Amino acid sequence: MPARLKLIVAYDGAQFAGWQSQAHRNSIQDRLEAAVEQICGAKTVVHGAGRTDAGVHALAQCAHFDAPNRRLKAERWVSALNASLPLQIRIMRAAFVPSTFHARFSAVGKVYRYRIWNAPVLPPFELKRAWHLSRPLDLSAADAAAKCFSGVHDFRGFTANRGKPSGNTERSIRRVQLRRSGPLVTLEFEAAGFLYKMVRLMVGATVRVALGKETIEDVRDRLEQKISHAATTRFVAPADGLFLVRVRY
Amino acid sequence: MPARLKLIVAYDGAQFAGWQSQAHRNSIQDRLEAAVEQICGAKTVVHGAGRTDAGVHALAQCAHFDAPNRRLKAERWVSALNASLPLQIRIMRAAFVPSTFHARFSAVGKVYRYRIWNAPVLPPFELKRAWHLSRPLDLSAADAAAKCFSGVHDFRGFTANRGKPSGNTERSIRRVQLRRSGPLVTLEFEAAGFLYKMVRLMVGATVRVALGKETIEDVRDRLEQKISHAATTRFVAPADGLFLVRVRY
Repeated sequence: MPARLKLIVAYDGAQFAGWQSQAHRNSIQDRLEAAVEQICGAKTVVHGAGRTDAGVHALAQCAHFDAPNRRLKAERWVSALNASLPLQIRIMRAAFVPSTFHARFSAVGKVYRYRIWNAPVLPPFELKRAWHLSRPLDLSAADAAAKCFSGVHDFRGFTANRGKPSGNTERSIRRVQLRRSGPLVTLEFEAAGFLYKMVRLMVGATVRVALGKETIEDVRDRLEQKISHAATTRFVAPADGLFLVRVRY
Repeated sequence: MPARLKLIVAYDGAQFAGWQSQAHRNSIQDRLEAAVEQICGAKTVVHGAGRTDAGVHALAQCAHFDAPNRRLKAERWVSALNASLPLQIRIMRAAFVPSTFHARFSAVGKVYRYRIWNAPVLPPFELKRAWHLSRPLDLSAADAAAKCFSGVHDFRGFTANRGKPSGNTERSIRRVQLRRSGPLVTLEFEAAGFLYKMVRLMVGATVRVALGKETIEDVRDRLEQKISHAATTRFVAPADGLFLVRVRY
């Protein structure tokens, strides 16, 4: 009888083509499916909670797949999968779950963290793990701008799905938090779900306010859709600084 | 008139052949000298405070060289050098200093930190930046073992210079500190100077005690040279976890 296994996956996204399966097989999902196949001997779909973009990292992405049986204990799955995965993708934990559990559809919340390094020089250890901004940032303005996103809004002005029919673009941001610790500025967002590129577009707008290139009113206007979609998609914060921190169930 | 410039250099040592100039030109020193030459148009020696090994990192290595003049301000040197250096090597700060200053001979102290990740799985963000030890460590034993190194000792049992004539192998460790923060265990050593591979050999011995493979008495015996040199050089902690943290003047 198949047994559903829930995985907590961490990855350094720098060298991968994002979460979702790609023709060239260099996505996180492809690598996980290849590792599962190597153990099961059968092609198996691995479902993820969130489709992180190319270059985006995860501290605790959540995924599931159906193992053929329960013969291998969950901890053994961790070491077996890690043995065939690249070191930049690690299964941190695994547990058998009821077959009603679905990594994506059972998720009730996601936390994303965006890291900005605000100093003249980016230390080598922050390379590909933060957005380097050397100019001084007005963080009280940034904080006020970020707080605009809190609550329920139609985020059609903060997504990059230009080609697709829009669908429901209303989302509810439960928590927005800006913190500084020395040169490190972090922005954390929590919501049931996010639109495509939404976090990086919110960060992009917040940073433009912090740099004095945009006002809080500009952000509010865009959130109230007074400014058309196309104009907003330019200010996408780079993937390097984005981390999927947690998925809540 | 030449002007001596002091540099604070950070580097991710993973892809470099250590500090010291090498025939294949992939050392930190080679890269710095190439960057200086690109700006000055003349071959210039860059002197470093400590010769870190291949794979060893630095948060704040100190170096100096003689610029042809003072026309370029120190801050401009920072950006000019960083523009031609690989992103894994960064000049964090620079300042003109009297010509009596010497990065190596003026140094009165160095601080090295060794990072150990003690958990079943090494997160991808710790790759090449920590020694992964999945077995539980007895940290109170490790702490006692590490404290043995404190003070003045003849460290000939804790250096890998087997080929060379020994010279003065007495060193004085001013501070040894072991800390745990979750899965991260750090060992910090401060001394006026260290012998070749000395920090990694002290960490190796400390970890063997933490794993129950050696006793504190074994470490003490080796420190009192009751055990021959050759037997001790095997337990060298990997370069990945070692960071040159600070050079004192």
